[in-house]
Amino acid sequence: MKINKAVITAASPEHRTLPIQSLIDHDGVERSVIEILLNEVQSAGIEDVCVIVHPGDAEAYQQAASGTSLKLHFIEQTERRGYGHALSLAADFTAGESFLHSVCDHLFISRDPDKSCARQLVESAKREGCAISAVQSTRETEIQHYGAVAGDLQRGSSAHPLYAIREVIEKPTPTIAEQKLIVPGLRSGRYLTFFGMHVLTPTVMTLLKHQTDSGADNIQLSPVLAELAKREQYGALLIQGDRHHVSLKYGLFRAQLALALAGQEREQILSDLLELVAHSRR
Amino acid sequence: MKINKAVITAASPEHRTLPIQSLIDHDGVERSVIEILLNEVQSAGIEDVCVIVHPGDAEAYQQAASGTSLKLHFIEQTERRGYGHALSLAADFTAGESFLHSVCDHLFISRDPDKSCARQLVESAKREGCAISAVQSTRETEIQHYGAVAGDLQRGSSAHPLYAIREVIEKPTPTIAEQKLIVPGLRSGRYLTFFGMHVLTPTVMTLLKHQTDSGADNIQLSPVLAELAKREQYGALLIQGDRHHVSLKYGLFRAQLALALAGQEREQILSDLLELVAHSRR
Repeated sequence: MKINKAVITAASPEHRTLPIQSLIDHDGVERSVIEILLNEVQSAGIEDVCVIVHPGDAEAYQQAASGTSLKLHFIEQTERRGYGHALSLAADFTAGESFLHSVCDHLFISRDPDKSCARQLVESAKREGCAISAVQSTRETEIQHYGAVAGDLQRGSSAHPLYAIREVIEKPTPTIAEQKLIVPGLRSGRYLTFFGMHVLTPTVMTLLKHQTDSGADNIQLSPVLAELAKREQYGALLIQGDRHHVSLKYGLFRAQLALALAGQEREQILSDLLELVAHSRR
Repeated sequence: MKINKAVITAASPEHRTLPIQSLIDHDGVERSVIEILLNEVQSAGIEDVCVIVHPGDAEAYQQAASGTSLKLHFIEQTERRGYGHALSLAADFTAGESFLHSVCDHLFISRDPDKSCARQLVESAKREGCAISAVQSTRETEIQHYGAVAGDLQRGSSAHPLYAIREVIEKPTPTIAEQKLIVPGLRSGRYLTFFGMHVLTPTVMTLLKHQTDSGADNIQLSPVLAELAKREQYGALLIQGDRHHVSLKYGLFRAQLALALAGQEREQILSDLLELVAHSRR
């Protein structure tokens, strides 16, 4: 299985300025959010990236990504027809190949000192030769914010368990989760939710095309992935890492803290934190 | 003394993306850095603002400031002739009136629950009828990063001391500070340094014009303020507040933490901090 391309969706009108926000990366270098995402992609051996953007944003993103050596393509989503529609616009770019897909409003911090989150995922997909979604174990109280999957443990070390997905449900209630999403072997009250990063096969583009051709208005990815699970082998890899949802309130702040705590400047940032807290008053 | 206008200098090529960075303000609302600065200016009763920008940046800043009701003017600094030159470009805008001036790479957090930093400064300038620079008490080890002033306590409560400035020196060494910048009444080893906000009189524009007309290359503000101190009454107000230098490494992060700790969401952010620190590993 070749995985030489990546698609990043960044077309949501709510997130237009997110990719151009600056953070200090875990290596202590100031980078825009989009540069950090592109480095993540590149760490998986990918050199060719398509970014789906809101009309008019390509230039600002190109500028914010000026530090990258990746080959960048920008495609504008001119109709507001949802996340799945945005992804489908990269069909000509992916040209019948499997590809890495990442959202633009998450940052990923690996807990494996040797492998980024994207590399863990891409290596697993190449090994298995099938679509794989990165997932994380999530408390029941939080699952209604995510796409969730169910499946059975297929293989993998206890550090990198791989599940065969049989069900995909977007933003399940705890009741639905208890009925349909129990995963044997996970701690009680825990479910597998999407991490924000997938290796997808050409079948996904075909399924998305059926949706877009049907004229549907708000095309989402999760129903297409549910259909994928019925047609092909489709895995879920429990990533050794954390993802930070940067579009949430204080999301950039939390991501910055996590990046700093994972990096060389951990002691400095902890001491800064304590000083600021001590200095602050109500 | 009328103070109806403000000038924000944001033309440094190193800080071009800074005004468009997003933070959660102390009231819990997401705002760009430039919006937070404009709100600071507005809190002092000012409605008319000129922003000096790097060529080509006006549109992005205008967009990032779309939440403001202030009247905004943008002027491009097309020659790289320094901070003082950038400020001088607003001479037609200020049109012979006194004005508030703020840099774009600082955020200001008041310790007075009723008055922003800008309002403390503008009220003091109106009361005194002269140019006043906001200053803070700074440890000797840090003064080489700042413009510093010396003077004698003129009036003001112990909470809001006002000094009559007799000397201005940009980035003094500790030796020079000890010789020329001792301020009676300050704690030992402490000096008065600029806070990043000034009320300036038309004389400053006249002095800057002499400099720009002379063809000088790198025109700074501190020498002009040193000259101002010889010509006019010129005060330094010790602000009840903190300024955060957002262009420093981790500067946005520190400013975000300080804003959150000063606001309604203090408990939430402290608990988030602890959770992230506890969850992090080396």
